[in-house]
Amino acid sequence: MEVLKPVDLVGDKVVWLDTRYIPWKEVWKETTDYKEVARAIKDMEVRGAPAIGVAAAFGMALAALHYEGEDVEGLLRRLREAKEVLANTRPTAVNLFWALERVMKRAEEATRSGSAEAVREAVVEEARKIQQEDIESNVKMGKIGAKLIEDGDVVLTHCNTGSLATAGYGTALGVIRAAWEEGKRIEVIATETRPLDQGARLTVWELKRDGIPVKLIADTMVGYLMSKGKVDKVFLGADRILLSGHFANKIGTYQIAVLAKHHGVPFYVVAPTSTVDPKITLDELVIEERDPDEVRRCPYPFEKVYVTVRDVEVYNPAFDVTPPELVTAIITERGIAYPPFYVSLKKLLEG
Amino acid sequence: MEVLKPVDLVGDKVVWLDTRYIPWKEVWKETTDYKEVARAIKDMEVRGAPAIGVAAAFGMALAALHYEGEDVEGLLRRLREAKEVLANTRPTAVNLFWALERVMKRAEEATRSGSAEAVREAVVEEARKIQQEDIESNVKMGKIGAKLIEDGDVVLTHCNTGSLATAGYGTALGVIRAAWEEGKRIEVIATETRPLDQGARLTVWELKRDGIPVKLIADTMVGYLMSKGKVDKVFLGADRILLSGHFANKIGTYQIAVLAKHHGVPFYVVAPTSTVDPKITLDELVIEERDPDEVRRCPYPFEKVYVTVRDVEVYNPAFDVTPPELVTAIITERGIAYPPFYVSLKKLLEG
Repeated sequence: MEVLKPVDLVGDKVVWLDTRYIPWKEVWKETTDYKEVARAIKDMEVRGAPAIGVAAAFGMALAALHYEGEDVEGLLRRLREAKEVLANTRPTAVNLFWALERVMKRAEEATRSGSAEAVREAVVEEARKIQQEDIESNVKMGKIGAKLIEDGDVVLTHCNTGSLATAGYGTALGVIRAAWEEGKRIEVIATETRPLDQGARLTVWELKRDGIPVKLIADTMVGYLMSKGKVDKVFLGADRILLSGHFANKIGTYQIAVLAKHHGVPFYVVAPTSTVDPKITLDELVIEERDPDEVRRCPYPFEKVYVTVRDVEVYNPAFDVTPPELVTAIITERGIAYPPFYVSLKKLLEG
Repeated sequence: MEVLKPVDLVGDKVVWLDTRYIPWKEVWKETTDYKEVARAIKDMEVRGAPAIGVAAAFGMALAALHYEGEDVEGLLRRLREAKEVLANTRPTAVNLFWALERVMKRAEEATRSGSAEAVREAVVEEARKIQQEDIESNVKMGKIGAKLIEDGDVVLTHCNTGSLATAGYGTALGVIRAAWEEGKRIEVIATETRPLDQGARLTVWELKRDGIPVKLIADTMVGYLMSKGKVDKVFLGADRILLSGHFANKIGTYQIAVLAKHHGVPFYVVAPTSTVDPKITLDELVIEERDPDEVRRCPYPFEKVYVTVRDVEVYNPAFDVTPPELVTAIITERGIAYPPFYVSLKKLLEG
């Protein structure tokens, strides 16, 4: 199985696909500077909760690899600076903070050896491990989740949760891929996902590459198709899942969940356990508000195409929160969590 | 009160604003050929159920005015041809067929006089009457509906139901205008309304012209804003209302209705009684399926900007149907209909 890796550590460089140019062209970028990785996350050249986590870990690896001194304390200071810069990019996806914590902790443990070289190696190893584990998690989630998809199912998905959103393979799109690889004849309905069109641009591009049947719809059409019985199941991702089962995901997810409930359509969330945040409560969840121009414009990287009066005020929340009563199940690499989630998720995290 | 008339009969020409270019520029077009009016309706240069009705009536006027013979039978044949061509443009909005029937009936009655000139005059007069009555209806609906809007309300609307969708003033946007003119401090949330962005392009443009506060959102954000308590009421239009209270309107309406019900937000439909079709049942309602490129592209008239893989399959229903149980009330120029609509609408039609 060939897996597209949208972000990777190659030698002493981070290499990534600038997803803003998909599907128009494949622009690969590279850097040796962790600050440039932070910028790429902030500007959504790299996007999708797990991909952001991996990119941040590789950013830490760059900070370690390109620290010129041999003093352990100086290297640790540099890593803490890098962690701060990388953390201050996007607030909602928890995988970012989880990956940064994990790499930092590993670096601190490696200081026991007393050598900067050992810390460097530990940081790089941990970052690569996060990448590798994410791909393995996705493949596992794919196998687990594919059991929920039957031959002939029409599956609706929102935003992009594929290779371009992860270390590779995908979460919800990984489940869809796995079902297809098992020979199930399925069809995918991809929502456009305004304002940034991750569905129209990225999901359609990935599915066409794999030859999986896909139909694109505008975000206004979800209710209509459900009312006509044309959607069997919803599968989508998550940027942060609370122990209560509330989860943050791309704006538009919540209303799809309400519509699914109204029409009796099963609604599945697919995310690795690294997306579960056992630390915060609903009140503490930060929803990122982004540049108004994203809503005022068509997401076309070559030219500024405004679709409205240029100075109109807008709302532009990048995420929304879906409550657990609208969720049928949450699929992780450790198994499927069913309601009540505060019991089932906790068990999966401990397991 | 100054009313923008997006389509008008000036001398022996039909003049219209090509709304595809709004908000980028104001392109006014004119013709003496009814076939060109039909094309403008089909291509959505003129759009919105009441505006389509008025344009079609003026198309009939052109057919009459530019018929060169003086034989009544020949003129009637020409009018029947024109009616056929104008009817075969868009299938869902009933105002089109209603206006064509009305003009044709008036022409047939005028044949009693025996002179082609009398038929011509009758057709032109009836078409102008349809235009004038639509503006008056809108102003009346505005006054009636404005009573349902309170000072401080945040009103969500979908698509465009303003001057650009009617003979002038607007239906749902007419109600919003009337509330604003009465001095109520309101704020409007306009949905983008993909795929053709009538909200982002037309509604925002109209409201900014009038100085009414407006915020634009992507269609993915409706549920989120309702869940945050940021929407007090929904007001939108209709393309065809059945006696049962089911109504067809711009795609995306139905899911807004489901979301409004879920969040306890009142949901109002504003349309003249000419939009009520007492003849057909739900099964007979035709939903127009339009060109896939509308979904694949950004609605930018200057350049073909694709936002996805060019050959991806799409669904592109232009309308959906909302059932009466999701509707709080229907506001017409003859009063407000409350459920059960098969009683209240019938009474209004008879009244």
